[in-house]
Amino acid sequence: MPEQVPGAGRESFGSRLGAAMAARGPLCVGIDPHPALLGSWGVDDDAEGLRRFSLTVLEAVASLAAAVKPQVALYERHGSAGMAVLEELLAAARDESVLTIADAKRGDIGSTMAAYADAWLRDGSPLAADSVTLSPYLGFESLRPALDLAAATGRGVFVLALTSNPEGASVQHVGGADSVANRIAQAAAAENARYRGSLGSVGLVVGATVGTALSDLDVDLAAVRGPILAPGLGAQGATPADLRATFGAAYPQVLGTSSRDILSAGPELRGLRAAALRTRDGLLAG
Amino acid sequence: MPEQVPGAGRESFGSRLGAAMAARGPLCVGIDPHPALLGSWGVDDDAEGLRRFSLTVLEAVASLAAAVKPQVALYERHGSAGMAVLEELLAAARDESVLTIADAKRGDIGSTMAAYADAWLRDGSPLAADSVTLSPYLGFESLRPALDLAAATGRGVFVLALTSNPEGASVQHVGGADSVANRIAQAAAAENARYRGSLGSVGLVVGATVGTALSDLDVDLAAVRGPILAPGLGAQGATPADLRATFGAAYPQVLGTSSRDILSAGPELRGLRAAALRTRDGLLAG
Repeated sequence: MPEQVPGAGRESFGSRLGAAMAARGPLCVGIDPHPALLGSWGVDDDAEGLRRFSLTVLEAVASLAAAVKPQVALYERHGSAGMAVLEELLAAARDESVLTIADAKRGDIGSTMAAYADAWLRDGSPLAADSVTLSPYLGFESLRPALDLAAATGRGVFVLALTSNPEGASVQHVGGADSVANRIAQAAAAENARYRGSLGSVGLVVGATVGTALSDLDVDLAAVRGPILAPGLGAQGATPADLRATFGAAYPQVLGTSSRDILSAGPELRGLRAAALRTRDGLLAG
Repeated sequence: MPEQVPGAGRESFGSRLGAAMAARGPLCVGIDPHPALLGSWGVDDDAEGLRRFSLTVLEAVASLAAAVKPQVALYERHGSAGMAVLEELLAAARDESVLTIADAKRGDIGSTMAAYADAWLRDGSPLAADSVTLSPYLGFESLRPALDLAAATGRGVFVLALTSNPEGASVQHVGGADSVANRIAQAAAAENARYRGSLGSVGLVVGATVGTALSDLDVDLAAVRGPILAPGLGAQGATPADLRATFGAAYPQVLGTSSRDILSAGPELRGLRAAALRTRDGLLAG
């Protein structure tokens, strides 16, 4: 049942994302205009190349994906001109009715965190997205301004929890039975109690290739009751079957995220679509 | 002795910062265009107000501070137009020969982290600063592309280590004798071994009001041999004497950072300068 957000004129993010995953399948396409990809597409590594790349990917996959996830770092490296392209992409995605996840991994405290929330989660902000990724080194609770603004505007967040890069363990696994990653997951679960729908609006980022770390650290993702953004499909090594094995009971919450595998099939729309469909069908069968 | 970086045409960041602290005192002025401050200055909460605020603060304090620290979130909330103002501020600070710390708290992995490094630490990037703050939730070593690019271009980084917001302990204090904060400090110390000068180019962010947490967690900041960015002076509660008590033997590495106390003395240059001088003199006497 759709969960309306009073005053926001839209359903909660979790409700919207759940509906999109049911209708289109659990695929998120990463829009990652890496210099090497721009080169292989035959566009320049400048704002205009970024724009052609971004809008082409959106046109190709908007109807096939539950969400698209622009990687903010790759716009930021072009400065304000790159950020203007990101604004254009986010607006175009709204017009295409595909949900957006701004992969920004922002995090700060107090009024500075409120400013990041304002940037990504406020109606009328030039960079407003449907959701944003956040980094909790300053504590899950430091993200409060974003959690609250997201709840008020029908938007969502994805908080970094457990990643598969080898150096991630030196922070995320620390603490034994009460590990940092587990504390983040438990805080997200508590936060999702404010959402009545089947999927809360506070998601986590958990690498598709974390292997047994979830069970080793006793992290219960099903209890989080929020969407799981799982980067690492395809070029980074995970298959949909790996995802199902890794996430188990939480698999229905998983938004499989693929970037390079799909993007390297461009710049032709037909190639991009075929790669996205192949990945999506794999996730549905996974 | 100045530590030249081969091929960069400049000294290392640590060497430049050490010289600036010796010449001008250990003050960093935070340039934080919060909406409420813009209002009290009588400028609009838009890109033009941001621009007037930023360039006025720079003009007032450039000769009195070792560094200025624009808070990126407060530019980002104005989207690409705000980021264009930040570019203009960073260029103006270069012209004024005051060091810049882009307070961005960025962090990611692999080629995405390389893109953030590219954005803030590459010669010719529109957002190039002398240094940038980084967030290590994905592990200190995930920041490698920024550590290496900073070393190659004579720039620096400040990695979040130990903060004074109450919720920070839920991540940073975890791990007992081998706490997350201590691991970050030890990794920064190891990294600074590549710098021969008295001050390395890999700094840490440690809150001015962390109190006894440094000794409780057995964090040895003197051994880090890098600059310590210590926000929290003034309006946030710490006096220069608190700083000396908190940092002890590492006090000579501390760059005391004040924002609101100084900024609220604007918009007149005379008021801003008097507040900056008062803070600087307190730090020198502290």
